[in-house]
Amino acid sequence: MDELPGSLGTSASLALRFGQTIFSTASLLFMCLDIQFYSYTAFCYLVTVMGLVVPWGMTLVIADAYSVFVKCLPRQPRILLIIILGDLALSYLSLAAACSTASTTNLLLDSDESYCPGKLCTRYQLSAAMAFLSWFLSLGSALFNLWLLPSL
Amino acid sequence: MDELPGSLGTSASLALRFGQTIFSTASLLFMCLDIQFYSYTAFCYLVTVMGLVVPWGMTLVIADAYSVFVKCLPRQPRILLIIILGDLALSYLSLAAACSTASTTNLLLDSDESYCPGKLCTRYQLSAAMAFLSWFLSLGSALFNLWLLPSL
Repeated sequence: MDELPGSLGTSASLALRFGQTIFSTASLLFMCLDIQFYSYTAFCYLVTVMGLVVPWGMTLVIADAYSVFVKCLPRQPRILLIIILGDLALSYLSLAAACSTASTTNLLLDSDESYCPGKLCTRYQLSAAMAFLSWFLSLGSALFNLWLLPSL
Repeated sequence: MDELPGSLGTSASLALRFGQTIFSTASLLFMCLDIQFYSYTAFCYLVTVMGLVVPWGMTLVIADAYSVFVKCLPRQPRILLIIILGDLALSYLSLAAACSTASTTNLLLDSDESYCPGKLCTRYQLSAAMAFLSWFLSLGSALFNLWLLPSL
């Protein structure tokens, strides 16, 4: 089997997963820490989705790190299919969350200043940007693995 | 070649494309007709994306209808790949537009009543719902065609 860069068990995949975990954790922290995020539906949704993406990314970081540094894990089509489907579903969910957060923040910025005390809206924007980056990396992983699937 | 229902040139695909065109046109009309939609960024984005989805869907409705009723068109992997990529890109864009519109409408409903004179917010909600349905059908088409691709 040829080693397609970016597919499961390669160092490029480890980098993609690592970035995904970092960005989704950053998005979660920007949104959660010391903010009453539950007053807007879109922000609750972002927190829920990122709470799903973080453990998913962490699990796959561990699997990739084991495969790169210790011993190459065997690739089974069934497991690869589950990972592709999970990646695609999570990428759609995180895109939806990022867009909702971005448009809500945009509306809050346009309206009265009182909705954005201090630097609050900047934090919302950063959180949405991190969610977009996480979506992009997750889509990349899904496409690389999808490319590998027919050869198994 | 076996006839996979839902792939390019079958009657199921014609139905999917037809629904996609109907829903995206409905979303566009609900948003555009007699409303000043350009005061919110999310609504402008929805109109832009739906303005891309409608001609794409119409073109493929015509191709499918020709293939079903007149003469079966030959399937080329290159053209199928372009259609799959276009479908995936448009489905991501329309999901993003639908989510932005839905969250903006939700925020407008939660805030002051003066932002939603008459039944305006109901129309925004209907437009977002139509965009979600259009996204779902477009994703379905993309997945069916993606399933067919390795067999060509």
